[in-house]
Amino acid sequence: MEKGYVHVYTGNGKGKTTAAFGLAARALLSGKIVYVAQFVKDMKYNETKLEDHFSNITIRQYGRGCFINGEMPGEEDVLAARNGLDECRRILSEGQYDLVVLDEITIALSFKLLDVSDVLRALEGKSYGTEVVLTGRYAPKEIIDFADLVTDMTEVKHYYTQGVLSRDGIDH
Amino acid sequence: MEKGYVHVYTGNGKGKTTAAFGLAARALLSGKIVYVAQFVKDMKYNETKLEDHFSNITIRQYGRGCFINGEMPGEEDVLAARNGLDECRRILSEGQYDLVVLDEITIALSFKLLDVSDVLRALEGKSYGTEVVLTGRYAPKEIIDFADLVTDMTEVKHYYTQGVLSRDGIDH
Repeated sequence: MEKGYVHVYTGNGKGKTTAAFGLAARALLSGKIVYVAQFVKDMKYNETKLEDHFSNITIRQYGRGCFINGEMPGEEDVLAARNGLDECRRILSEGQYDLVVLDEITIALSFKLLDVSDVLRALEGKSYGTEVVLTGRYAPKEIIDFADLVTDMTEVKHYYTQGVLSRDGIDH
Repeated sequence: MEKGYVHVYTGNGKGKTTAAFGLAARALLSGKIVYVAQFVKDMKYNETKLEDHFSNITIRQYGRGCFINGEMPGEEDVLAARNGLDECRRILSEGQYDLVVLDEITIALSFKLLDVSDVLRALEGKSYGTEVVLTGRYAPKEIIDFADLVTDMTEVKHYYTQGVLSRDGIDH
């Protein structure tokens, strides 16, 4: 069995979740089995429709999304994230998925919904062959140190400064 | 008709083509019509199999790939890239595609297969509603100045330094 590596896509620029779904698509098209866990998020996005087209992907959301819109996270957000991490820890250790994406997990860390030591424990316990991708801003040093590949997606320029809102099929 | 914007995904880290295909997948899943032009590349990748699963994507390659493997580009590479840009200029201007990806076009620029003024002309002549994504290292200042969104995908760490070669379904 080939070794699976740990990727981190972090930084303040556009492309983190997008790249994770690009990698998921590439893996799906090669016949790999893919699990996408979305922390914090609770909306259906265009990318979550991949499930309608491919039988080898499972997408689950472990968020309530509300505090993205300005509210601070509460107990329910913490509970949702912790239940998600518990499920992901099991999934990572069992090895039935070739690629596991932990989307926005570093945002969950940055809002203290999760503890970095628990995330590291899940990564340490992963099956040898499982490839893992973590996305989100503010990836902490412990995660970067642990990862095999880290890309910082740095915003040089973004059209939101032109007043462009999130658009269907492009931004979500 | 909504305005289409110009994205650039550049930098030395993993994620540029991956994000472009992630965006292509998101657009496909929302019902948009997508064209992917791959410059320099001539191999079939897992991501190019998107054509087998979605009728609303067209992928064309305008490269010979050889100089990636150490050979310097020759006349045939220049011709392939220029023919590709001619086709893309027409496609961008006609507006029948909602999203056009110009994958590795900045590599074609950096190897002087194309002239930056010709690429700018193609972008300037694009249909109002067409969204365009350019990828590749070494995006020149003229392209960055022109773009609406630029992400620099900076390599913090890469597993090739551990001797990991490009793997099926993950790296290609």
